[in-house]
Amino acid sequence: MYTLVINCGSSSLKFQLINPESEEVMAIGLCERIGIEESKVTYQKKGGEKSVLLAPMPTHKEAVIIMQKLLTDEPSGIIKSLKEVGAVGHRVAHGGEIFTSSALITEETLKAIEECCALAPLHNPASLTGIRACMELMPETPMVAVFDTAFHQTMPESSYLYGLPYEYYEKYKVRKYGFHGTSHSYVSKRAAEYLNRDYEAMKIVVCHLGNGSSISAVKNGASVDTSMGFTPLEGLLMGTRSGDVDPGAMQFLMNKENLTIDEMLDVLNRKSGVLGISGVSSDFRDIMKAAAEGNHRAQAALDTFTYRVVKYIGAYAAAMGGIDAIVFTAGVGENDGEMRKKICHQLAFLGIDVNDEANAKRGSEQLISTADSKVAVLVIPTNEELAIARETIALVG
Amino acid sequence: MYTLVINCGSSSLKFQLINPESEEVMAIGLCERIGIEESKVTYQKKGGEKSVLLAPMPTHKEAVIIMQKLLTDEPSGIIKSLKEVGAVGHRVAHGGEIFTSSALITEETLKAIEECCALAPLHNPASLTGIRACMELMPETPMVAVFDTAFHQTMPESSYLYGLPYEYYEKYKVRKYGFHGTSHSYVSKRAAEYLNRDYEAMKIVVCHLGNGSSISAVKNGASVDTSMGFTPLEGLLMGTRSGDVDPGAMQFLMNKENLTIDEMLDVLNRKSGVLGISGVSSDFRDIMKAAAEGNHRAQAALDTFTYRVVKYIGAYAAAMGGIDAIVFTAGVGENDGEMRKKICHQLAFLGIDVNDEANAKRGSEQLISTADSKVAVLVIPTNEELAIARETIALVG
Repeated sequence: MYTLVINCGSSSLKFQLINPESEEVMAIGLCERIGIEESKVTYQKKGGEKSVLLAPMPTHKEAVIIMQKLLTDEPSGIIKSLKEVGAVGHRVAHGGEIFTSSALITEETLKAIEECCALAPLHNPASLTGIRACMELMPETPMVAVFDTAFHQTMPESSYLYGLPYEYYEKYKVRKYGFHGTSHSYVSKRAAEYLNRDYEAMKIVVCHLGNGSSISAVKNGASVDTSMGFTPLEGLLMGTRSGDVDPGAMQFLMNKENLTIDEMLDVLNRKSGVLGISGVSSDFRDIMKAAAEGNHRAQAALDTFTYRVVKYIGAYAAAMGGIDAIVFTAGVGENDGEMRKKICHQLAFLGIDVNDEANAKRGSEQLISTADSKVAVLVIPTNEELAIARETIALVG
Repeated sequence: MYTLVINCGSSSLKFQLINPESEEVMAIGLCERIGIEESKVTYQKKGGEKSVLLAPMPTHKEAVIIMQKLLTDEPSGIIKSLKEVGAVGHRVAHGGEIFTSSALITEETLKAIEECCALAPLHNPASLTGIRACMELMPETPMVAVFDTAFHQTMPESSYLYGLPYEYYEKYKVRKYGFHGTSHSYVSKRAAEYLNRDYEAMKIVVCHLGNGSSISAVKNGASVDTSMGFTPLEGLLMGTRSGDVDPGAMQFLMNKENLTIDEMLDVLNRKSGVLGISGVSSDFRDIMKAAAEGNHRAQAALDTFTYRVVKYIGAYAAAMGGIDAIVFTAGVGENDGEMRKKICHQLAFLGIDVNDEANAKRGSEQLISTADSKVAVLVIPTNEELAIARETIALVG
C-alpha cells in the first residue's frame, strides 16, 4: 500500500506517490494553471521519463481525475487502481488557531478547514476542492490534513500578537501564524537526531531559505517564534516578497503612486524582495552571477538578504535565551555555501565556527560546524512530501 | 549669552533657554494646539511658578512671537532682549539623505530642509515656519538645524534598504531613516564617557523606550541600524503605535473594515501599540497597574512590548558581531526598573548580569550591571534639548 501526498495551491496541484516503508518516491506530478487557459500536467514515474501534457482543468477536481489516470493507466501507471493507496496526506495552507497538529479528515475537519478560508482565501478553498475530489474517488481511504501553520501554534502570545487593537484579534483572528511548519518541524527534528541529542531539550534556529523564506525558533521541540506572520509576506527578504516593511512607507507609496491596497500588496508579493532590489531576477543564482560581474544592486540584494537572516538568528537566540543549533534548509539554505559562510562568520560572537570543507559539500545532511563550535550548524535538506507522508502514516496507524 | 533650543512639532513649539556654560535651564515653554482653536502656552522660568495662558496661534510664527515676549517681558522674562541669545538650535524632524550632521542655517540649508518636506510633510514645514520667524526676530543670531535623522545616516545600505522595488528608493528616497537620533547619539556617547571607554571602539545598543520607542545599534561611534524606519511607526511596540506588522494583515483589515490607507495608518499610529493590546492606556504606569490587578490584556501588552525589545537587542548584537553595553533611556527606559530587569534576565545568555540594587535607583546616570557582567548595562537619562544646545554651540563656535 502506498501513501499519496497532495499539495493544492491556488492554481496548482502537486502529488507524490510514496512507498511508506522504503520512503521511495514512485511517481511525481504537477498540475499547473488550473482554472486558467493552457493548463498542463508534468509527470514522471520512478525510472521513467518526464512527460508534459496539456489538459483542460477548470477546477482542482479535474486535476485529481487526471492524477488518477496517470497513476493507474498504462504506460504511466504505477498502480492498478487507487485501492493500492493506503492513505492520502493533504497539505493544507491554513489551520488557523483550530489545528495545532495534523488531523484525520472527517466532515468535521472539513468544516473547520472551511472556517479558516477567510485567513487563506486563495489556498484553503483549493485544498478543500482537492480533498473532496479525492474523497469521491477513494471513499474508503483514510485521509489526513497536514497544516502549514500547525507546528507554530505553540507560539506564546507575546510572539503571535501584533501591536494592533486587540479587537482585530478577537473579531478576525488577526495574529502571527507562521508558515512552512512541516519543513521547520521536519528539519529541526532531523537535526536533533543527527546530533544524537534530545529534541525536547534543544534550542534550534531553523533557516528555511528559498524563494519563500522563513526562520523559526524551536525550543524544546516546540516553535516559539517564526518570521512569517499573518501571511507568508512578513519577515525575511524573499525571491519576490518584501518581507518586513514600514507601514508608513506603504502609505507614502500608495498615495504617491495612486495604488489601491491590493495593488500595493501585489507589488510587495510579486515585484519586491531580492528581485525588487537587484532588478535582475528572483533566482539567487542569477543574482550571484550578476553581483560577481560587478552589479551593485545585485550585491545590495544579497547583502540585505543575508543581513536580515543574521538579525533574525540573533533575535531568536535572544528569544530562546541561547542557541544550540542552527539548521539551513530549502533551495538557498541547502545549496548556497557562500551565503551560509557569511551568515555564520557574522555570528562568530556566539561561538560559531564553520568547517569550510564540510560546508562546501552538497546534497546531503551535513554538520558544517567544527568540533570546537559552541553552536552546531547543520544543513538538512527539507522534504515536505516525505514529512507529510510520515505524518499521514502516523495518524492512520 | 544664552542658547535657545526650539522644537517645532506639527501643532506645537517647545523651547528652552539654556546657559551654555553651566548648562542650566533658565526657562522652558510649550505652545500647544497651534493652528487649532484653544491654543495655549505653558511657561516656567528658573525658580518661578508654572503658568498657563491661552493665546491665539494660527501658525508657528505667532508662537515664536509669544515665546519672545515671555522670555523678555516682566515678570516672566529672563533676558532684556533676544540680543542676549547667542545662538539658536532648531530641532528638525527629517534631514533625508542630505543631512548627515547638524548644519548652520543658511538660505541653502533652508532650501535643503524644504526638499525633505515630502518625507515629513507635517513636521518639516512647521520647523521651517519656526526657523523663519526666529530669523525675522533675530536676523544677526547664528542658528543651527539639528536633525532627528542625521545620526542614523551612517547606516550601511543593507540596514537601510527595504525589500521594495529599487525604483522607489531612486524616485522617492523610500528607505529606512530612523529617528530619535539626537537621543541615541547623546546617550551612547555619555555611556562611553561614564564607562571611561573609547566610544569609537565600542558596540552599544541604545534602548530609547518611551511613548515613542526605538532601538539603535551604535558601533564604533556610528549608528549602524535602528528600529524606526521610513517613518517613526516601524519597529518596537509603542504607546499607541503598532511597530512592525505584516503588510498582509493591513490588506486583510482594510478590506474587512473598508478602511482607506490613511484611515488604516491612523489606527496603526494612534490606536495601536500597548494601548491597542491592553485596551487600558498608552501610559505604561496605567498598564502595569492593570496588569498587577490581573488584567490579562494589560499583561499581554507588557509581555509583547518586552519581548520585542529583547529580540531587537539580540538582532543588533548579531548585527554588530557582539555587544559591549546596553543603554536604557527615555520615560520607560529610565524609570521602569522592573522592565529593565526582565529584559536583562532574558539576555543572560549574553553574559548580562544586573545589580538589583543599582537597578532600583532612579533619576541619574547609573551603571546597573554587576562587576562580573560581560556587558555593561546603564541607565542614561536622555536630554534632547541639552544635546541640541551642545551641537549648536559646537557649530557656531
